[in-house]
Amino acid sequence: MRATTRAQAAEINGGELRPTIRIGIIGYGYWGPNLVRNFCGVKGSQVVAVADRRLDRLDLVRRRFPAVATTQDARELLQSPEVDAIAIATPPANHFELASKALDAGKHVLVEKPLATSSAQALALVTKAARRNRILLTDHTFLYTGAVRKLLELVSSGSLGELYYYDSVRINLGLFQSDLNVLWDLAVHDLAIIDSLMPARPLSVSALGSRHVVGQRENIAYLCLRFPNRQIAHVHVSWLAPMKVRRTLIGGRDKMVVYDDIEPSEKIKIYDCAALFTEGPDIEHQPRVSYRRGDVWAPHLDMTEGLQIEAAHFLDCIRTGARPQTDGWSGLRVVKILEAAERSMHENGAPVALDWEEEVA
Amino acid sequence: MRATTRAQAAEINGGELRPTIRIGIIGYGYWGPNLVRNFCGVKGSQVVAVADRRLDRLDLVRRRFPAVATTQDARELLQSPEVDAIAIATPPANHFELASKALDAGKHVLVEKPLATSSAQALALVTKAARRNRILLTDHTFLYTGAVRKLLELVSSGSLGELYYYDSVRINLGLFQSDLNVLWDLAVHDLAIIDSLMPARPLSVSALGSRHVVGQRENIAYLCLRFPNRQIAHVHVSWLAPMKVRRTLIGGRDKMVVYDDIEPSEKIKIYDCAALFTEGPDIEHQPRVSYRRGDVWAPHLDMTEGLQIEAAHFLDCIRTGARPQTDGWSGLRVVKILEAAERSMHENGAPVALDWEEEVA
Amino acid sequence: MRATTRAQAAEINGGELRPTIRIGIIGYGYWGPNLVRNFCGVKGSQVVAVADRRLDRLDLVRRRFPAVATTQDARELLQSPEVDAIAIATPPANHFELASKALDAGKHVLVEKPLATSSAQALALVTKAARRNRILLTDHTFLYTGAVRKLLELVSSGSLGELYYYDSVRINLGLFQSDLNVLWDLAVHDLAIIDSLMPARPLSVSALGSRHVVGQRENIAYLCLRFPNRQIAHVHVSWLAPMKVRRTLIGGRDKMVVYDDIEPSEKIKIYDCAALFTEGPDIEHQPRVSYRRGDVWAPHLDMTEGLQIEAAHFLDCIRTGARPQTDGWSGLRVVKILEAAERSMHENGAPVALDWEEEVA
Amino acid sequence: MRATTRAQAAEINGGELRPTIRIGIIGYGYWGPNLVRNFCGVKGSQVVAVADRRLDRLDLVRRRFPAVATTQDARELLQSPEVDAIAIATPPANHFELASKALDAGKHVLVEKPLATSSAQALALVTKAARRNRILLTDHTFLYTGAVRKLLELVSSGSLGELYYYDSVRINLGLFQSDLNVLWDLAVHDLAIIDSLMPARPLSVSALGSRHVVGQRENIAYLCLRFPNRQIAHVHVSWLAPMKVRRTLIGGRDKMVVYDDIEPSEKIKIYDCAALFTEGPDIEHQPRVSYRRGDVWAPHLDMTEGLQIEAAHFLDCIRTGARPQTDGWSGLRVVKILEAAERSMHENGAPVALDWEEEVA
Repeated sequence: MRATTRAQAAEINGGELRPTIRIGIIGYGYWGPNLVRNFCGVKGSQVVAVADRRLDRLDLVRRRFPAVATTQDARELLQSPEVDAIAIATPPANHFELASKALDAGKHVLVEKPLATSSAQALALVTKAARRNRILLTDHTFLYTGAVRKLLELVSSGSLGELYYYDSVRINLGLFQSDLNVLWDLAVHDLAIIDSLMPARPLSVSALGSRHVVGQRENIAYLCLRFPNRQIAHVHVSWLAPMKVRRTLIGGRDKMVVYDDIEPSEKIKIYDCAALFTEGPDIEHQPRVSYRRGDVWAPHLDMTEGLQIEAAHFLDCIRTGARPQTDGWSGLRVVKILEAAERSMHENGAPVALDWEEEVA
Repeated sequence: MRATTRAQAAEINGGELRPTIRIGIIGYGYWGPNLVRNFCGVKGSQVVAVADRRLDRLDLVRRRFPAVATTQDARELLQSPEVDAIAIATPPANHFELASKALDAGKHVLVEKPLATSSAQALALVTKAARRNRILLTDHTFLYTGAVRKLLELVSSGSLGELYYYDSVRINLGLFQSDLNVLWDLAVHDLAIIDSLMPARPLSVSALGSRHVVGQRENIAYLCLRFPNRQIAHVHVSWLAPMKVRRTLIGGRDKMVVYDDIEPSEKIKIYDCAALFTEGPDIEHQPRVSYRRGDVWAPHLDMTEGLQIEAAHFLDCIRTGARPQTDGWSGLRVVKILEAAERSMHENGAPVALDWEEEVA
Repeated sequence: MRATTRAQAAEINGGELRPTIRIGIIGYGYWGPNLVRNFCGVKGSQVVAVADRRLDRLDLVRRRFPAVATTQDARELLQSPEVDAIAIATPPANHFELASKALDAGKHVLVEKPLATSSAQALALVTKAARRNRILLTDHTFLYTGAVRKLLELVSSGSLGELYYYDSVRINLGLFQSDLNVLWDLAVHDLAIIDSLMPARPLSVSALGSRHVVGQRENIAYLCLRFPNRQIAHVHVSWLAPMKVRRTLIGGRDKMVVYDDIEPSEKIKIYDCAALFTEGPDIEHQPRVSYRRGDVWAPHLDMTEGLQIEAAHFLDCIRTGARPQTDGWSGLRVVKILEAAERSMHENGAPVALDWEEEVA
Repeated sequence: MRATTRAQAAEINGGELRPTIRIGIIGYGYWGPNLVRNFCGVKGSQVVAVADRRLDRLDLVRRRFPAVATTQDARELLQSPEVDAIAIATPPANHFELASKALDAGKHVLVEKPLATSSAQALALVTKAARRNRILLTDHTFLYTGAVRKLLELVSSGSLGELYYYDSVRINLGLFQSDLNVLWDLAVHDLAIIDSLMPARPLSVSALGSRHVVGQRENIAYLCLRFPNRQIAHVHVSWLAPMKVRRTLIGGRDKMVVYDDIEPSEKIKIYDCAALFTEGPDIEHQPRVSYRRGDVWAPHLDMTEGLQIEAAHFLDCIRTGARPQTDGWSGLRVVKILEAAERSMHENGAPVALDWEEEVA
């Protein structure tokens, strides 16, 4: 029986020797295990260490991955010369400080969503990554799934026609977070998708919410974005729903799409239906709008786990210097909207205008 | 073969002779046929005539119900001494004038939702019905279904615990109405249910919407009601969705309910789940909220068509003078909210306060 | 107000005077009301009378259709010169006698499924209709729905490739019939569809069943047909299932179809998937079969009620002498299989060979 | 950073020192990875080595679990004194030989389903395990899931009333196996559940099937078991269905159950419905059976992965000598039925009687 040597400094890919990228992961709570598993599974990387303050979480790492080093002190990872890139999956409040230090230490950085808890922090990270010439990837993981890539393809190819609306419901029972409201936890996913999908930046955001548990942040919220040309996006998020719903409707002039992420296989359905406007003089009580209803089509999707594609993309960007699809700027734009939405929510839904200076947009 | 005599002036019910109530129906478009069919099917009433301006619609009446008289002139019904009660299923713009004349002519009146197109009109109808001592029933038909009656029972019995939220999605493709926006067409159903369900009157309403067809009213809208004690109700309505959705979530402190009206049999599901608040000192990154997940229960429902129960209830109220469950006042309260919501929508979602004087509430 | 005259001897269609076909309906139980409603709704026919032994059923007819004559004695309809065609919706035990007498009286006849309770009876009806030159239509109503017409189109166009199997589940709670087992009540629908769909006649039938209520016929049954070229059809029927299922799978070499009749809109889904056989030498434990998975496509369907199209088709056949799509022969073939299936069931599933003489096939 | 020592000879559980059970796993194809993952995750065991003939599969093991030894030669595991128990997840044709050798070497053995490819082999394994006093567990993994445990509880508590039928559909696209037909691959799961669920042993089995790919075994099959008292069980299995279905209906005299394993949360639904038999004289065309329809109830289920509970149960049995819930005998009974079903299939569905000698039952 042959035991595997732990340190494989390089592997041969297509005849070419490529250095393995060594990853350190900070935070082994809900999302961290997915990062470890995917960076272990993807070619060209090696997870060398995991940091978490909780000993029972580190025990879990050692049981599952005996070859991965563990520590309670994230600084060990940040300072280690054996770590090329850091993936951060701690509570959001720590994202800025950890990512900032990692960039300072010359590491490439992947940060779980949201990138930071304020747009000032997010901007500081983006600026630092650019100055130090390091890759900064915001872990907007849905953007890497086959379903969302298909959505982007449908919209950018123009096959839906002019976009009318984006409407999303993202609700379930749990997990209350004590430091941020539900918008920062769940709406963040839709905002990242919208950021890629919509042809223009939103003009304003309105938000309403309610908190039903004493001493906690809003656990149910409704967020609405206004775009040029009467385009509208609406997101309903909740930690207090009896069942899990992940359903997005996208309405175009020519076709409409339902994206139901709970569906095991037919996640995307394209409805060949539309409202048709009838020109001509008004006839009493005769609506001038009729309907075309046609076939429904569920395209075959690449079912590879989004995070696996994202991990490989992160490694590629590190190797080639390419700009990540979900770079720091997209993370910053999403945080900017969340910040404004929170202000709107505190003002009972009054719309808050969004300014997009050139460099952000 | 025995041909049926058309005029049956009375029928014997349980040994007691009760006069048959003679119904005239105005409007035979989308909803009118349901009224005719149900008043034909219920005991104790006779549909004597149908009025509609369109000859092809009257042809349809004669084909289906050869014994029912037809006319293009609604005034014939309003003036006929052979008509005891009028059911109005015309476009909303005509509700006020027709209902007003019918009450003036001493008829009992059932009006399709919405009761009128302004709260001033609705109030005038309510006042007139009271003065003339006639029954005025607003056709909020969902209130008479087995599903909504079960919802009311669940809430009023306290088995859900303190109510947290009402969230409803009521969307489909079509039918655009040219004179009113989608709130007046679809949200009206939810407002009628909320009016019966919630323990208090709403404090304010906010609404956002968009119009995607040139020259038409808003075809997609989001309406939010604020109640005392952080209770919140939200309704998403649309005429431009690829598929039909009729799903309402009701969250209580102890249990939550999903009411899916598309489901053929299990329309109501009660989830024995809740968020549990953990008292005690804060532990870092440990959420103080946990969850209880238990059984799901779908109670057996009376599947009688709501309109059939409503028709029988209308006849009962006429006979006994009882106040209808969905009387003019409930119709007025719903119109009041719709009016305010439309104002909010024109002010980009600014909340509009709702005043409930004693007599209305 | 104008009352409709009951006797309209003719109507003008496209400038041509066509005599109205006068229909008498025998049996107003579960299915009869659908026949009355559809023959009332279709152009060119008039329902003149309904016969049923039960007075309460006739009361219902008079309440809903005051212009239709009623009688407890079916012979009145059979002998009436004012009746051109008879539709029979009585319990199956009476089909033969009533249809036979109606043909003898020179009427055209529509018989609810099954055509008769033995193949000898069915053959006698087919022969009599041919000799008397009358239309005999077996009420295999599913064949007239948009969904089944789409199935036929998909199969006959060859787009599924060579057919592999037909698998259907048709179960619900109720309605036990005292005189026939569940195969005669429910499998009859699938056999009619299979009769149209499959390119060849079945070679043999096997059936298994069980009776769970004392003194009753089989309430659960499984029927399997063998065709040439390894084609197979299987039908599961039950009156004792907790919920209603109406789902048929059709597997072809190139594509597969799911037909779910409970779905409100997407009743037919075409899966572009197939098993692919890999030629070449055997590799140990390497399956030589791989899979192609592609898009799923739900074609838009005509949602007109099948029975409405069937009623119009019956009238057309009467007028033109055309052979009905579901003529007596198809009714006979289905009864022949049911008869053989019952024999197999009594022999514990031993396959019973099916002989198709030239005229029947 | 602390690297984990690989060999942990013991761990302290509740103050008591218990030796860690060392597991060797043979076969790392479809099911093997689940065994490795679960024996890594459960307390009290250590996966020390994995054997597979394919180098690429061993590469995968080393990537995921660098501390686990790998070999192409299963004999190394069978002979190693460092291995206490063997889990076998190879193609079924190898089960007998490997399990036999493992028992001879004094190892405890877990064998993936089916236990063997003939009842003679299965009986030899059972006998050998008994003689050598080793644990032999058949990996009927569904028996350890929360859903099936709930089914067993519902049936054994008598709350469904007398059992009428078990009906299961277990179909999907793929994976054709070259050495065994679809019954051995998929029906085996249902037979294991039926073995635990039904109060008596089946009297006979019938099976029908068809092979649609040249040179392959049956890819679609229907299996029916007869029990005393008209109880019936039916299983439809297929490798050539367009979508995955895992749905079982269990009908009792008082209640019925739907077990849908595809459902993410409400896998078990209990329908409080039944057929009611009306005593008394026959009334013409009046069915003497009516229905009771009541609530539907979805009990909360333990969602722990079945294989995790099974792995822990295997370790417990090794430690305590307890008889596994799915011991060799249950594996033998299932193989016996599969063998008979294959014979019935080759005789076109003729029922094959099943003899249960005392020691097997």
